[in-house]
Amino acid sequence: MFGRTYFCGEVTEKAIGETVTLKGWVQKRRDLGGLIFIDLRDRTGLVQIVFNPKVSPEALSIAEKVRTEYVLDVKGTVLARDQRSVNENLKTGTIEVQVEELTIINEAKTTPFMIEDKTNVSEDVRLKYRYLDLRRPVMFETFKMRHQVTKAIRGYLDGEGFLDVETPILTKSTPEGARDYLVPSRVHPGEFYALPQSPQIFKQLLMVGGFERYYQIARCFRDEDLRADRQPEFTQIDIETSFMSQEEIIGLTEKMMQKVMKDVKGIEVELPFPRMSYQEAMDRFGSDKPDTRFSMELVDLSDLVKDSEFKVFAAAVAAGGQVKAINVKGAAANYSRKDIDGLTELVAVYGARGLAWLKAEEDGLKGPILKFFDEEKQAAIQARLNVSSGDLLLFVADKKKIVADALGALRLNLGKELGLIDQSKFDFLWVTDWPLLEFDEDADRYFAAHHPFTMPVREDLPKLESDPANVKAQAYDLVLNGYELGGGSLRIFERDIQEKMFSVLGFTKEQAYEQFGFLLEAFEYGTPPHGGIALGLDRMVMLLAGRTNLRDTIAFPKTASASDLLMNAPDAVSGAQMEELHLSLNVKKNQ
Amino acid sequence: MFGRTYFCGEVTEKAIGETVTLKGWVQKRRDLGGLIFIDLRDRTGLVQIVFNPKVSPEALSIAEKVRTEYVLDVKGTVLARDQRSVNENLKTGTIEVQVEELTIINEAKTTPFMIEDKTNVSEDVRLKYRYLDLRRPVMFETFKMRHQVTKAIRGYLDGEGFLDVETPILTKSTPEGARDYLVPSRVHPGEFYALPQSPQIFKQLLMVGGFERYYQIARCFRDEDLRADRQPEFTQIDIETSFMSQEEIIGLTEKMMQKVMKDVKGIEVELPFPRMSYQEAMDRFGSDKPDTRFSMELVDLSDLVKDSEFKVFAAAVAAGGQVKAINVKGAAANYSRKDIDGLTELVAVYGARGLAWLKAEEDGLKGPILKFFDEEKQAAIQARLNVSSGDLLLFVADKKKIVADALGALRLNLGKELGLIDQSKFDFLWVTDWPLLEFDEDADRYFAAHHPFTMPVREDLPKLESDPANVKAQAYDLVLNGYELGGGSLRIFERDIQEKMFSVLGFTKEQAYEQFGFLLEAFEYGTPPHGGIALGLDRMVMLLAGRTNLRDTIAFPKTASASDLLMNAPDAVSGAQMEELHLSLNVKKNQ
Repeated sequence: MFGRTYFCGEVTEKAIGETVTLKGWVQKRRDLGGLIFIDLRDRTGLVQIVFNPKVSPEALSIAEKVRTEYVLDVKGTVLARDQRSVNENLKTGTIEVQVEELTIINEAKTTPFMIEDKTNVSEDVRLKYRYLDLRRPVMFETFKMRHQVTKAIRGYLDGEGFLDVETPILTKSTPEGARDYLVPSRVHPGEFYALPQSPQIFKQLLMVGGFERYYQIARCFRDEDLRADRQPEFTQIDIETSFMSQEEIIGLTEKMMQKVMKDVKGIEVELPFPRMSYQEAMDRFGSDKPDTRFSMELVDLSDLVKDSEFKVFAAAVAAGGQVKAINVKGAAANYSRKDIDGLTELVAVYGARGLAWLKAEEDGLKGPILKFFDEEKQAAIQARLNVSSGDLLLFVADKKKIVADALGALRLNLGKELGLIDQSKFDFLWVTDWPLLEFDEDADRYFAAHHPFTMPVREDLPKLESDPANVKAQAYDLVLNGYELGGGSLRIFERDIQEKMFSVLGFTKEQAYEQFGFLLEAFEYGTPPHGGIALGLDRMVMLLAGRTNLRDTIAFPKTASASDLLMNAPDAVSGAQMEELHLSLNVKKNQ
Repeated sequence: MFGRTYFCGEVTEKAIGETVTLKGWVQKRRDLGGLIFIDLRDRTGLVQIVFNPKVSPEALSIAEKVRTEYVLDVKGTVLARDQRSVNENLKTGTIEVQVEELTIINEAKTTPFMIEDKTNVSEDVRLKYRYLDLRRPVMFETFKMRHQVTKAIRGYLDGEGFLDVETPILTKSTPEGARDYLVPSRVHPGEFYALPQSPQIFKQLLMVGGFERYYQIARCFRDEDLRADRQPEFTQIDIETSFMSQEEIIGLTEKMMQKVMKDVKGIEVELPFPRMSYQEAMDRFGSDKPDTRFSMELVDLSDLVKDSEFKVFAAAVAAGGQVKAINVKGAAANYSRKDIDGLTELVAVYGARGLAWLKAEEDGLKGPILKFFDEEKQAAIQARLNVSSGDLLLFVADKKKIVADALGALRLNLGKELGLIDQSKFDFLWVTDWPLLEFDEDADRYFAAHHPFTMPVREDLPKLESDPANVKAQAYDLVLNGYELGGGSLRIFERDIQEKMFSVLGFTKEQAYEQFGFLLEAFEYGTPPHGGIALGLDRMVMLLAGRTNLRDTIAFPKTASASDLLMNAPDAVSGAQMEELHLSLNVKKNQ
């Protein structure tokens, strides 16, 4: 039953005349003129096998019982197909295997969906029968690519002297991040481990420990309300170095990504990647992770329209806000008033109270707000927006953040809708010069924009307490095609700066030491300057494989309610288990 | 502050005359004749740097402030040392760096222990200050070796077409194993995830999904009372294949280990590894994981002594037990009666009620039990045990299991004590032909000897219900130097056999389907024959690195009470966190 000599997809004309043993699944069976034809599938592809009563009536009679997805063990001879039966869509399409012996290894019920790349079955069914979903070739190819990505990364980092070090999964709950998954301790009643949101602190401790170059393809956990592209557990390429500058870490990451693109996609990407400050990204694209595969940039018109008779514009600028526009080139004819109403609804999601518009025709601008602008203003607007006949101009006037969010989202939406995005492009971009802190109005305090261990720009240190909003971080995000691929920073490695940082975040000294005393203490024993980066592997694979669903890059993903539909997890546990963990439930049955 | 040109341990004579920039830690400072000498350390080793007032009085004056473990940035010129100051124990011992510029990057308090390979500080202190412990070169070298081991394994498996696939950490609690770590769900009140004890079911589902060749260096979790060589989280090299025979899986594993030994230790191990049945291992070594680096095998004397006048021996055999002995060659003079009393205490731990002994002198055997054996018996015993003058013979008479455990442990103990073990040897051994089931007297039922998914030997299938004790498994363990490195098996892939297996283990059909319904169902959709192996990475690294403590192979290990002494985990969590998880504690404060 063993001893396969070929994989199905690898039987080529070179094997003609050979006796081969194949194993695989029945993709399709056709009975034709007393013969039976079966497409036999394994992970490498399909091969046609033929049952002929003149060759083996026994094999033919077994083949008559065979149905889709049966598992077969086949022995036969490779023959050339005659010219008219060659299948040019199949790698093995010029040959077939005439079967001499057939064993049915295992049978199969009718599967709830066909094992084919194209499927319209619901994702819930795919997840419940994930083992069948994974048989679809497109799924296998995605996981093969995932393997190739990690292989390229490991190869590159190994060559640069990085050590793959595993850090704990059972660790300590820390504030200042997302919600932790907790694990009750049986041995220590009333105490809990937490699953790590990232190996951040451990990798810093490895730097204190003199490891100098660490990486890990690390599982991370966040108990958050899930969005389409979030999973409760996810994987990041986690890198940390000592004694390296921001430039050196950026350079290293670029070379790593260059190797990934080369090995996995066969694409030579040019180095260095373009860079943009956070402020420039927000100004030009209304996003801190701009998709630079197409233009349609945001243009500030505040100075032009601040005195205009259009009160909405004038008032927005007067209140400290902005008026910005995008020029949707040549799209005037594509968007009716009704279509524009639809776009208005879209920007409303981001808080914009309206979407003004103008269309450019042969004889000038047209539209309901035109009357508020004299000819000089109209000319200035046209000049600044580089308007040609047929263009559609869309304006948002509001607070800066709303303008950016609304026009940024509108730009992306229109870019997709109008097919402006070259899907074969991979646009990498560094976003740098981030603010260190963000003020949260609800909590009435500052939060770390990245995390509390990010090093401020040295010359901004004096402002850390006096003017925290204007302290920049030594941080950098890597963006690919409008997705945040990951981010990194240099870290604080001096106790006094770290203490000050905790203080700015609202920790008392006691609280800081209770939570992070071990780190603050570690900083006193000769901690080297260090920094690193973390890149999301799931998302990277999704983008390289051209998928749109993050779950397609994870073998056994969870749903939006964090359930495993295949194994039915989470699930109730026994009273004895609860008792051992010193826990009782605060749940009313049938609540 | 950046831009290092050399690692400390890599400045050689080739660099003489060069201006170099080094970064590292102060290992030692010596002031001598107006000069200051510092041994600067990074992860590659040490280099001597010299401060001379004639070269840079500024650098010298900064160097005067420098203490052990300070972090330095150094610029200087590489000089040859004069002949009498060459240090042959140091890779960089023929050169030194004359410092022109010095920056103190960070200071250090006096460390709680010296950063040196040899240390006699308690392990608890090492764990609390793990970041300092990791600076000891021997620790770094162990993690470098760990990296090399996984690199060799990944390289080999990748070449054989295996895909590295990640399986979930948040999964479902299953019975029939060790105790699970549980994770309460916030979204599903009263329900829990479990951390996996192994990816066993997922890897089988990947085979159902047609992946054919899977591997993962996988984190696993067991909430068990810890022994010296157990950790709550550990790492295994997890492998699964479809359509491969036991022979093929064994062959693959051997080639993988051959590559590991070659790449990591530079040792060519011969293939195939020796094999031994479970029964033979128990008979000859009293262990299912025999250390074959030395002989001193267990010899069965039951037939010789069953009629002897020594009632202890005769009674043991009559009760269905055994009398076995080991011959401790040439050790008669090393063990006094008092020493032998010590050995008796050792075997008592394993339930043996006594340890009989004889010594061989020039003129024959001597010892208290000699009188019970006539000359013919004495001669037979000497012949069977291959006795020469000066040998010590040690006998245990008891139930078979006690005899095996007691003499097996005694053999190991004496092997170490007498230095019989060649520590440079790496003895791999396959143990095969395992029983499928073990009867547990307390629970009054059978348990799976490996796990419930292990395939019975085909010809034993009819005995599965009638005579379960005598059903053999298609299972194999890999042993290295007396340690179980890992184990594997072919798996059940037919629903009816798996159902029967659950039934033998005492599951009702309902219970089996409630727990494993998804797997039983999966078996109905064309499941291929499959099997695999899992090897313990932590233990493998421990053995290859010549360490004796498993914790030395884990960057941030936990203590025997499953605590992280560095970060203080587990720890109490807030009431709000408990509330979100729908839990309350069954713990009285100050209990």
